[in-house]
Amino acid sequence: MASPSSTQTQSRSPEIRKDPVNNRWVIFSPARAKRPTDFKAKSPQNPNSSSSCPFCIGNEHECAPEIFRVPPDPKSDWKIRVIQNLYPALSRDIGSKKDGGPDGEMRCTGDLGRVVTGFGFHDVVIESPVHSVQLQDLEPREVGEVLLACKKRIEQIKEYDLIKYVFKNHGASAGASMSHSHSQLLALPVIPPTISARINSTKEYFDQTGKCCLCEVQPKDLQIDVTTHFISIVPFAATFPFEIWIIPRNHSSHFHELDNEKAVDLGGLLKLTLRKISVQLNNPPFNFMIQTAPLQAIDTQLAYIHWFLQIVPQLAGVGGFEIGTGCYINPVFSEDAAKVMREVNVP
Amino acid sequence: MASPSSTQTQSRSPEIRKDPVNNRWVIFSPARAKRPTDFKAKSPQNPNSSSSCPFCIGNEHECAPEIFRVPPDPKSDWKIRVIQNLYPALSRDIGSKKDGGPDGEMRCTGDLGRVVTGFGFHDVVIESPVHSVQLQDLEPREVGEVLLACKKRIEQIKEYDLIKYVFKNHGASAGASMSHSHSQLLALPVIPPTISARINSTKEYFDQTGKCCLCEVQPKDLQIDVTTHFISIVPFAATFPFEIWIIPRNHSSHFHELDNEKAVDLGGLLKLTLRKISVQLNNPPFNFMIQTAPLQAIDTQLAYIHWFLQIVPQLAGVGGFEIGTGCYINPVFSEDAAKVMREVNVP
Ligand SMILES: Nc1ncnc2c1ncn2[C@@H]1O[C@H](COP(=O)(O)OP(=O)(O)O[C@H]2O[C@H](CO)[C@@H](O)[C@H](O)[C@H]2O)[C@@H](O)[C@H]1O
Ligand SMILES: Nc1ncnc2c1ncn2[C@@H]1O[C@H](COP(=O)(O)OP(=O)(O)O[C@H]2O[C@H](CO)[C@@H](O)[C@H](O)[C@H]2O)[C@@H](O)[C@H]1O
Repeated sequence: MASPSSTQTQSRSPEIRKDPVNNRWVIFSPARAKRPTDFKAKSPQNPNSSSSCPFCIGNEHECAPEIFRVPPDPKSDWKIRVIQNLYPALSRDIGSKKDGGPDGEMRCTGDLGRVVTGFGFHDVVIESPVHSVQLQDLEPREVGEVLLACKKRIEQIKEYDLIKYVFKNHGASAGASMSHSHSQLLALPVIPPTISARINSTKEYFDQTGKCCLCEVQPKDLQIDVTTHFISIVPFAATFPFEIWIIPRNHSSHFHELDNEKAVDLGGLLKLTLRKISVQLNNPPFNFMIQTAPLQAIDTQLAYIHWFLQIVPQLAGVGGFEIGTGCYINPVFSEDAAKVMREVNVP
Repeated sequence: MASPSSTQTQSRSPEIRKDPVNNRWVIFSPARAKRPTDFKAKSPQNPNSSSSCPFCIGNEHECAPEIFRVPPDPKSDWKIRVIQNLYPALSRDIGSKKDGGPDGEMRCTGDLGRVVTGFGFHDVVIESPVHSVQLQDLEPREVGEVLLACKKRIEQIKEYDLIKYVFKNHGASAGASMSHSHSQLLALPVIPPTISARINSTKEYFDQTGKCCLCEVQPKDLQIDVTTHFISIVPFAATFPFEIWIIPRNHSSHFHELDNEKAVDLGGLLKLTLRKISVQLNNPPFNFMIQTAPLQAIDTQLAYIHWFLQIVPQLAGVGGFEIGTGCYINPVFSEDAAKVMREVNVP
């Protein structure tokens, strides 16, 4: 990624465009761009090293502004920092509904498709002050604190009519440019396609059965581990080999309903799951995504929206078939993957 | 990929599963699997070299059975071969509607989701007898012959009620395991999500405007090149930087309507486009996909389904945000990419 000053299109605001052929939203984000003519194929770069890492303790001045830290005392050492993204995909400076700006305003460009201004938030959650410490190395309580920091940030921007989306990239081939353990939080003005598809699909199930499909008891052969409040499974139609979901056992629509006790419980299960993945699959790159309900969701919808955490190790490639069709080829049956993950011993 | 004999789940047939949460089809393909416990993260392997390439002329005996060759005389040297895939994602041996088998039969597994047997075809089109020759190195007429070979294969399996899907992976990070120039043809028993989304979306446009949105004149600033029958553009809401579509200028729903004259014209434009990508973007890995109408499409649908060829150079990574939301972040505005591609000189 180029430094902001080298960017030709720097002055343009981000735009979110939808094209009439695929009915798909794309965020055009000039702040993340090199000049168009500088784009070249490159071998994947190694994520940054500890010798020059802005996320390490002591280098706070190399980062975009801090939003808050844990613990909050600005003079004591921090354990977690939530900061602005230096190359935000969306801009918090181009006005919003809240302050009378153009948020949600949709320009119709005729034949061209539709455009929404790219108002939104794009933050980074630094999960540890130490470069080499990964999320799975933290104590369950500390993993819980990271989750609670995400919750706090979501609650801070609650009043904005935006979809909040928390995700983590770990390892270069999972897209991570920074190896220092972190997650990202994006708050965007459109409902992304997988989220609306999920809401429609779980609604259909609810209409047919009267039940939320993630409240249903999961078949034994797909289960991995169970704690007081959560269960980990390989979903029946896992898109990727060894894809794992961590699901609250009692119905809950919004991730930010997580309380302190549940955060520690989830922290423990997330730690265990990441360690199992690391041991069994040889420390693969992975992504995780918190799949939660839009804040705008109305009461009748909340009955069939059940939040969960989706973890995807990067083991298989994605080729033309998957890009073109949205269908995936998974070489490992879900029940076989679940059995392996149930049985792996972590030291 | 393991040799077929090392595979534990070898005896199981492929299954296509849909889960109730995401409403997404996944092909479970044991023929493509190692044993589940053998799955490990790995650095991307280099595609195979010419010294041991089953796709090279002379090594036909190392390939799965041939379906046909061009020219057809089995005793003369071939220019193109269409063969079965040795590790097919779908199986042609588990019966079909045509011969009274279980094609399309949908097992409902209650809470679990839905399953369709994995009947289908998975073929490989070897585009040249010589290892080092890439598609863009061929003459326009020869590129046209490759396209006509895909058309011929689609017509051969026309009677099967399957969605035919042609795509190409070029380069290891675009997923290619074989560097010898080839495309793949998959014929599957379910309509993939991007295809149904596209049909719904172009229908909506048609209902509102009375027009097919790909017949509309494309804005000048998105155009790259124009030939007698085709135009290349960067779509208004390109999902990936420098994504390019080649579109027939006159309405046509099915790729297999391509005749010999149009095939040469398209061959020339495809060659030019691939060369421009290679020169400007430093020979990046890429995928291309032929986006055509399902054979089952009825007459009223054909008015708003317009086939096109989608080319995606692999320049930006895909991270947790994209996997989780189906939304993409594109750092290059489409009109900037189109300008660059219009102006690049190919030797
Ligand atoms: N000094 C600093 N202060 C504040 N922030 C800083 C900073 N230096 C870097 N950053 C930000 O830190 C973030 C680190 O994120 P990741 O390593 O998870 O992946 P990145 O967002 O680069 O791209 C991956 O994730 C996105 C989203 O999934 C994909 O679009 C993309 O293709 C994939 O490579 C970057 O977004 C970067 O802008
Ligand atoms: N001797 C032989 N005879 C006949 N066929 C042979 C053969 N040796 C190999 N093959 C087949 O040739 C094909 C070559 O295909 P590619 O190199 O385009 O990618 P592949 O299908 O491996 O996976 C990429 O494409 C698929 C589909 O997009 C993605 O699922 C995957 O993750 C990605 O890596 C393979 O499907 C392989 O099974």
